[in-house]
Amino acid sequence: MNGIYLDNAATTRVFDAVQQLMMETMREQYGNPSSLHTKGVEAERYVRQARERIARTLKVSEKEIVFTSGGTESNNMALIGGAMANRRAGKRILTTAIEHASVSNPVRFLEEEGFDVVRLPVDGDGIVSMEALREAMTPDTIVVSVMYVNNEIGSVQPVEEISRIIKAVNPRVLFHVDAIQAYGKYEIRPKKMGIDLLSVSGHKIHGPKGVGFLYLAERAKVRPLLLGGGQQQGRRSGTENVPGIAGLGLAAEMVYENVREKAEQMAAMKAQFVQGVEAIPGTKINGKTGRDSAPHIVSVSFEGIRSEVLLHALEAKGIYVSAGSACSSNKSTVSATLKAIGLPGSLLDSTLRFSFGAFTTAQEISETLDVLAEVLPLLRRYARR
Amino acid sequence: MNGIYLDNAATTRVFDAVQQLMMETMREQYGNPSSLHTKGVEAERYVRQARERIARTLKVSEKEIVFTSGGTESNNMALIGGAMANRRAGKRILTTAIEHASVSNPVRFLEEEGFDVVRLPVDGDGIVSMEALREAMTPDTIVVSVMYVNNEIGSVQPVEEISRIIKAVNPRVLFHVDAIQAYGKYEIRPKKMGIDLLSVSGHKIHGPKGVGFLYLAERAKVRPLLLGGGQQQGRRSGTENVPGIAGLGLAAEMVYENVREKAEQMAAMKAQFVQGVEAIPGTKINGKTGRDSAPHIVSVSFEGIRSEVLLHALEAKGIYVSAGSACSSNKSTVSATLKAIGLPGSLLDSTLRFSFGAFTTAQEISETLDVLAEVLPLLRRYARR
Repeated sequence: MNGIYLDNAATTRVFDAVQQLMMETMREQYGNPSSLHTKGVEAERYVRQARERIARTLKVSEKEIVFTSGGTESNNMALIGGAMANRRAGKRILTTAIEHASVSNPVRFLEEEGFDVVRLPVDGDGIVSMEALREAMTPDTIVVSVMYVNNEIGSVQPVEEISRIIKAVNPRVLFHVDAIQAYGKYEIRPKKMGIDLLSVSGHKIHGPKGVGFLYLAERAKVRPLLLGGGQQQGRRSGTENVPGIAGLGLAAEMVYENVREKAEQMAAMKAQFVQGVEAIPGTKINGKTGRDSAPHIVSVSFEGIRSEVLLHALEAKGIYVSAGSACSSNKSTVSATLKAIGLPGSLLDSTLRFSFGAFTTAQEISETLDVLAEVLPLLRRYARR
Repeated sequence: MNGIYLDNAATTRVFDAVQQLMMETMREQYGNPSSLHTKGVEAERYVRQARERIARTLKVSEKEIVFTSGGTESNNMALIGGAMANRRAGKRILTTAIEHASVSNPVRFLEEEGFDVVRLPVDGDGIVSMEALREAMTPDTIVVSVMYVNNEIGSVQPVEEISRIIKAVNPRVLFHVDAIQAYGKYEIRPKKMGIDLLSVSGHKIHGPKGVGFLYLAERAKVRPLLLGGGQQQGRRSGTENVPGIAGLGLAAEMVYENVREKAEQMAAMKAQFVQGVEAIPGTKINGKTGRDSAPHIVSVSFEGIRSEVLLHALEAKGIYVSAGSACSSNKSTVSATLKAIGLPGSLLDSTLRFSFGAFTTAQEISETLDVLAEVLPLLRRYARR
């Protein structure tokens, strides 16, 4: 499978070492971690190692890591579990207008169940308004959920500041951060930053699909979503996905090796790409583009060109990108994020997301710019007819 | 990893062909099925193929297969999702006294939420009383959940008869069958047998951990458990675990190749094992042992010997078995199933489960019998001191 894969915010290729570890675990250590014999104990050891590896990347305790089936389950558990466990303390939930569907849909469900939801607006760059947050935050707000890095335009929220603001009003509020696009790109310190719940997905960090975790601060009260055999100290029942968890642990360790340097390199590629795109007439980059934005996501609107047409034109040249967010099966739905940042209606359906990963090279960025410069005039000519 | 693995009801070794397919999927087809480009389309093709393979084993429509993170999620989705979606039609839920924790704990949760739960008793062989079922079944019963094969003693419920009885009273009742220990051993025909929801786990059928499915009859109304991007027609959001799903599909196809013959062979090994155990003094086999019981599970109580002691004595000889059910992390909890069948208190903690899989051989059964005959007298001598 060749080509230039610039859809890393949708999913990433699994690191070879992660694949190998998963195979080894599947072949040799196939026991059930709940079994009392050695085969169970050995399987449990892989789970423990993964827990330690992940805890180290966040500087938290191993006990605070709960493995899930992925980012969607982590977000559902944080939101629904957090709201249900604390409903006696209040009914208010704050979130933003640009959350991923795996946050916004659980929030809508809670709203139907009688919770009082406030969706904070964002500015033209996709940054949450601190003023709106201060106004909306009340002592009976039980959960605040804000995504760290937006999956469509790469905007970065001031999570530490948000935590300070909300905890000044209600120190017991649960602060949930969807870090699915941020983990592996930023040094995240939940304790220092005042984050109580943090969602991560394996397949966004060159780990396996079907596995993720929720950081769950020891003090945080969250009702389990899956009930059963009482695995993971009763917080998430179900036989542990040992190969997947082992793979996730290794991928986490790998993406955090020299994370700053790697993020700088990625940011340099982004700068190169942004500069190149800006030189092409009729393009508009959505959101910030400097080090105050995520290093791996660039959203570009192309005037007068339908995103799907350009997507397939690029694909014909071996370049894989996304129209909006590909983490949703509602492929034709208009992006809530692009609407929230006030993108003109004419550009909503003319926007592509380019997202980089550990395997992306500066050479691929140059090639992509060349292809864009080549195909855009052709497509515009057709579009005009 | 050598030795004799007789803990297949806890988890099974993944078939080599399944491992290979998963690796191939991870390496080559790493796209997100929701992406619009080829890499997404190719990944989606693996998901579709798995769906078709599974649908064929049950003679149902592909659209009725929902992939989950495993048996626990399938059971939680069936119970909680089924009860919540139908709560306006009634409040009563029927289940049995011998369900797995991933059924009994969701049921307990529903009870706390105001549902009216009846747990049907079983006889000394672990078979649900049809008389009790007839008495308990009411027109406002919305969900009935009965496991096909009990995970601890291998008792088999008359699911088709149960369906007839309950549907005569309320044709709209949802009949859920936890088939986690039955799938791959029996020909299951949900349509013919009147099953609306059926839970299956990958790692019990030599497929991967962390993946399973729920058969969801088209007519069945079930509230989704995981909300988000709307994957799987909105019934289960979250990026599909493509390698896991592909592996599950292949494992399903493989266990259903000549399923009757393979079940007969396994039943013959069970007969051989049962005969050998019965010849050892001070042993008691729990539940039925003939073709009216599951071919891969034998529960044996050993008078005067603590199960954990015998478990480790066998382990020292390279034989891996389970004390009760190993699918639960509450390793020391007394088994609800063994209590429900009226096992004397003195034997509750003296019971082991031997469970066979696709790799188990008659030679291994003989060896296990030899080891039992050797270690039991020694352990009894120690126990008496």
